[in-house]
Amino acid sequence: MATDARQQAAGVDPARIEQAAALLAGRVRATPLVPSGTLSKRVGAQVALKCENLQRSGSFKIRGALVRATKLADAELSRGVVAASAGNHAQAVSVAARERGVTAQLFMPAGAPLAKVEAVRGYGGVVELVEGSYEDAAEAARDYAERTGATLIHPYDDPDVIAGQGTISLEIAAAAPATRTIAVPVGGGGLAAGVAIAAKSELPGCRVVGVQAEGRVRGTICDGIAVKRPGEVTGPLLDEYVDELVTVSDDEVAQAMVMLLERAKLVVEGAGAAAVAALLAGKVSPPAEGEVCAILTGGNVDATRLAECIRLGETAAGRRLVFTTVVPDRPGALASLLATIAELGSNVIDVAHIREGFDLHVRETAVRLVLQTDGPEHGDRILAAVREQGFEAQPEEAPDRS
Amino acid sequence: MATDARQQAAGVDPARIEQAAALLAGRVRATPLVPSGTLSKRVGAQVALKCENLQRSGSFKIRGALVRATKLADAELSRGVVAASAGNHAQAVSVAARERGVTAQLFMPAGAPLAKVEAVRGYGGVVELVEGSYEDAAEAARDYAERTGATLIHPYDDPDVIAGQGTISLEIAAAAPATRTIAVPVGGGGLAAGVAIAAKSELPGCRVVGVQAEGRVRGTICDGIAVKRPGEVTGPLLDEYVDELVTVSDDEVAQAMVMLLERAKLVVEGAGAAAVAALLAGKVSPPAEGEVCAILTGGNVDATRLAECIRLGETAAGRRLVFTTVVPDRPGALASLLATIAELGSNVIDVAHIREGFDLHVRETAVRLVLQTDGPEHGDRILAAVREQGFEAQPEEAPDRS
Repeated sequence: MATDARQQAAGVDPARIEQAAALLAGRVRATPLVPSGTLSKRVGAQVALKCENLQRSGSFKIRGALVRATKLADAELSRGVVAASAGNHAQAVSVAARERGVTAQLFMPAGAPLAKVEAVRGYGGVVELVEGSYEDAAEAARDYAERTGATLIHPYDDPDVIAGQGTISLEIAAAAPATRTIAVPVGGGGLAAGVAIAAKSELPGCRVVGVQAEGRVRGTICDGIAVKRPGEVTGPLLDEYVDELVTVSDDEVAQAMVMLLERAKLVVEGAGAAAVAALLAGKVSPPAEGEVCAILTGGNVDATRLAECIRLGETAAGRRLVFTTVVPDRPGALASLLATIAELGSNVIDVAHIREGFDLHVRETAVRLVLQTDGPEHGDRILAAVREQGFEAQPEEAPDRS
Repeated sequence: MATDARQQAAGVDPARIEQAAALLAGRVRATPLVPSGTLSKRVGAQVALKCENLQRSGSFKIRGALVRATKLADAELSRGVVAASAGNHAQAVSVAARERGVTAQLFMPAGAPLAKVEAVRGYGGVVELVEGSYEDAAEAARDYAERTGATLIHPYDDPDVIAGQGTISLEIAAAAPATRTIAVPVGGGGLAAGVAIAAKSELPGCRVVGVQAEGRVRGTICDGIAVKRPGEVTGPLLDEYVDELVTVSDDEVAQAMVMLLERAKLVVEGAGAAAVAALLAGKVSPPAEGEVCAILTGGNVDATRLAECIRLGETAAGRRLVFTTVVPDRPGALASLLATIAELGSNVIDVAHIREGFDLHVRETAVRLVLQTDGPEHGDRILAAVREQGFEAQPEEAPDRS
């Protein structure tokens, strides 16, 4: 009873999600559900990846935005459409507005990645950059809506948007009816709420685990779910339908991104890899029977940023060894050090001579080496061999972001 | 008539490919065919990507290896299975042998990426590293086969292998019957031959364009199709069934890899991106009507290598500006230079002070800057602004592989 009342208050129930799916048919991709051998082995149950990174506009956000835009009356539409977003929602609203023949006005924080701003413009959106955080952009969007009568499309706190995102569960249920656990990233909660409501209706006995990013306040590589908290509409729905919430760290997310790149051959942005990070970190219990689905929410990350995440992920996984050593300043000293490293099958990524900050004798040079390794044990073997050759070696503990 | 005779000599005809598909049903993935808006715009026709990078073992090679291994009689099988490969074929043969309950012996060149060697071992293959090139590993594999009676599974010059690879065209025909152009990478030619034979039979009027990598002799980022030339079986089939051959450069391939990462959200190894590189470079004419399919052949590239390809691709696309300048050695000089750059919206990736090789006055420092830009025009605007501030700026012409 309480449940039904709440659903109706929020206006989201399975029937509404079915209607959303009918609206979206042929307009969004039924994205592939790709099995992952690597994850299945780790988790101890069959795991499949729901690839919303392969969705139109590069993320699941197009589903909710399109449902909302489709339901606008012509009179509303003529006054325009506006949204605030650091990225994925802005891209989705631009596409959705274009499909209804209007131009969307987007307010984006000035620090938003250039690639996302360009993508929004590529979809025909008009961008205004706002100094400050997402909150400042959101305020500018609200002002604009009040001033002009344009309709504000909220990224998550809206029943139509939630219903649109929920259509993902209908596709999971159709493609993998044995799914008994769904892991889904949680930012504002629109995706998780919609997915959970439809899953509870379509997949009997299915648990829904929400995954939040630890670094929600400070800068995080999960910019898609950062500095957001569940909204007035989504909050109560999450309480009701999501069985458990777990959190993942930036290091765990970066390792998940690298695993997805190398094993699943998929590009997933930080926030988009959060569900896989939770699975890899053993934070989601496998179901007693049945399959697991992890939702990859989006793939909008530019190549430079991706290269940085690779570095972070490899360091976190112990696949990069960074250490500083002092070598005598004579011919052949560095060569013999590098030969020792080569014999152990490690690839040298960078060698830098350091002249400051070390207590060096006149005929000594400090050298900082960055090596690629198989993992922590390989790194330990290399350090041992280097020390056996008479070189001091001080490994760096902190992730290398240089 | 000539055609039929040749098909029978080589033993590959559409019926054999249909039989291969029946053998493979449920054992390989019918990989997704993902539409690409970006490529469609560039080419002027609907373009879809056949994602064999999402195939089991990370490449299409599993198709041919599995057909060949499945057809081995138990007596042959008991004497073992052997192959030579720098990567994808070794992974595929390991998986195929394991499915028949035996362990494959793989000869791989000593320089093969560690990640690929580890992947082969992960699939249960026994690896022997051979000093020298792929040819040396191939000779070691032939010796082993003669000595032990094991069956050598050739990577391309084998009718069963060719038939297995050809099953890709049956899936393309089923999912996108309007396909009128297929672009396919060519190394040894097993894939291109199989794809072309089945396409000519299943997709009336379809052209097949083979794409070769320019740097086939020297080191290339396309290691999957490098240092290979069509074989005795595949050569005549390519002559007969492939309509046109085009070549792409390493720079074009690297740009295609970055485009696939950023826009299609897919990880594709160098050789695997060759077909897309040809489309992006305008080397494949769009069909008068109908759709285009580009085959992404594999995604087996480790994260470190991927980060290097990103760097190469961004430089080739003019999205990195590397220049050296001389700044006076006084407080604030470097800061004002960086402020100028920041105003133009460019991200500084690296700043290095250079002490040698420059004609410097006592109170001057040379600085090498690596910047992220939107493209060549953005780079030119930055250089102009820097010079306007009175700094000399010498851009580096060559791709930055540092």
